[in-house]
Amino acid sequence: MYNMDKLFETVAGRGHVCVGLDTAAEYIPEKERRACPAESVLAYNKAIIDATVDVAACYKTQIAYYEEMGIAGLRSYAATLKYLRDKGALVIADIKRGDIADTASRYARAHFEGDFEADFVTLNPYMGMDSIEPWLQWADEKGKGAFVLMRTSNKGRWDFEELELKETGDEPAVEAHERRGSSPAGAASRRLYDAVGDKLSRLADSRLGKYGYGAFGAVLGADPKSPRECEEAAAIRAARHNLFFLIPGYGAQGGAASDAALLLREGNGGVVNASRSILKAWQSAAAARGLDLATADNAFAAEAARQAVIEMRDAILRAVQ
Amino acid sequence: MYNMDKLFETVAGRGHVCVGLDTAAEYIPEKERRACPAESVLAYNKAIIDATVDVAACYKTQIAYYEEMGIAGLRSYAATLKYLRDKGALVIADIKRGDIADTASRYARAHFEGDFEADFVTLNPYMGMDSIEPWLQWADEKGKGAFVLMRTSNKGRWDFEELELKETGDEPAVEAHERRGSSPAGAASRRLYDAVGDKLSRLADSRLGKYGYGAFGAVLGADPKSPRECEEAAAIRAARHNLFFLIPGYGAQGGAASDAALLLREGNGGVVNASRSILKAWQSAAAARGLDLATADNAFAAEAARQAVIEMRDAILRAVQ
Repeated sequence: MYNMDKLFETVAGRGHVCVGLDTAAEYIPEKERRACPAESVLAYNKAIIDATVDVAACYKTQIAYYEEMGIAGLRSYAATLKYLRDKGALVIADIKRGDIADTASRYARAHFEGDFEADFVTLNPYMGMDSIEPWLQWADEKGKGAFVLMRTSNKGRWDFEELELKETGDEPAVEAHERRGSSPAGAASRRLYDAVGDKLSRLADSRLGKYGYGAFGAVLGADPKSPRECEEAAAIRAARHNLFFLIPGYGAQGGAASDAALLLREGNGGVVNASRSILKAWQSAAAARGLDLATADNAFAAEAARQAVIEMRDAILRAVQ
Repeated sequence: MYNMDKLFETVAGRGHVCVGLDTAAEYIPEKERRACPAESVLAYNKAIIDATVDVAACYKTQIAYYEEMGIAGLRSYAATLKYLRDKGALVIADIKRGDIADTASRYARAHFEGDFEADFVTLNPYMGMDSIEPWLQWADEKGKGAFVLMRTSNKGRWDFEELELKETGDEPAVEAHERRGSSPAGAASRRLYDAVGDKLSRLADSRLGKYGYGAFGAVLGADPKSPRECEEAAAIRAARHNLFFLIPGYGAQGGAASDAALLLREGNGGVVNASRSILKAWQSAAAARGLDLATADNAFAAEAARQAVIEMRDAILRAVQ
């Protein structure tokens, strides 16, 4: 059974929230900060996980926040992953790796086995499908999954992801079909992310799970700014029926429940990530109750995080109904 | 002074070889393999570094080979970087990271400071220039450098990097100029990697070092398969006069000195990476002398690596003359 199937089932039972453990030491209540930031981060992660594990679909660990703290940070990263595994929670290692051949296999061993074992990874497709394919062996052998960057929610996506491609005469029929599906404006607006999507759709077909989603899905940002962009988001969802989406950009990054809902299918097919709005929920919770921020501890922050997850979960559930 | 200027000077004095420390435990002579593979790798790296530091331009550490071994591997990675720093050698951390905003800054702190400090990193441009720009602060403050993936030498580059872009009417003049420079076939063949190159050229102009190369350069593969591809390589070099190139694909990956030379300018402007052909040179050296592979030790391997670097250095120097 692919991890993507498990994720589908978790979403069906607990909603769409992916808790982003992009835990910076400065997000932690001051009275809980220890001499070693990496230790504070691990303790904070455990508190957040304990408080949210029954209301979240999964977790996402952004490795940059741990790499920043060097060896000690990566020890906390490994311990966070182990803690999640022991709780039976699904975790996406947000590593955005992209490299070829032997190097890709080594990255896969690094993040699908051993100290840094996760259930899913995020991958970057720039170098081509030979940077994605080596990871499939772990899908076949251990059910592991991946989310490949397709269209992100940052402004810089216009630099390359959104570049319009020249049509070529020998475009395979399947691509032409998918292109029409994903691009309401027709041939004129086939973009780089469409080309990535075409490859990912075919890859998903080759490793299809029992709910109609491939073992590998895509990262798709949820931040449409105009009715036209909303239409585009809906069209992408329709065309990429076999891709499970990891949807970033919610909360602190500007996306809303209605935006995320455009990228879901029959109430499933995606998880929506929020990080800061959950990890730092204690600050607004304290302010709302007129409490001094300095009095907050991890228990208070964990309870605020739980409430933030529940509110987000319910907002998305309302939006998809 | 930018590290890229230092690299230019090192190339002028010692040639173009970038020694790739993609050190897998199985590349090491059997009698030197210890119970802990990460320790064997560190000891082997030190032997290779000692034997090549006066004949190599720089080193490149492919972090996947260390991540694969978990925390212990990353400890060897950090120790390798420190050993290189202590020797005064320049090192490129081949991490191919690509993420935005706060995450990018944290990656930059991870790899330009602390345990994993390197002189250069490799970056992936897929998400756009807002995934590259946060790294510039370290160029401004500490002279740090980067090589951004532009056109790689793997087969998968045809999936996305080589896709032809649709011309747009509002293309800025500078891009049109550069496009004509880089694409002998004219408007019809502007490709994704041209768009990446345009952005990188402009970024290089904004941080120009004293030898006419920007603080950030590009990764450009050296493996042209036909006269037409050789022409393309030469045209890319001509158009991207301010980009220092990191050129992979030499040796075990198929590229030759004459291919690499097409991507150099006036005998400088690039370093050429080889990994396996240097790290495993002891195997062919032993075979050539009729020695039993089992008798080889690190000292033998280091001497073979030195000879391989010198031969590669001289082959490239002959090719550029």
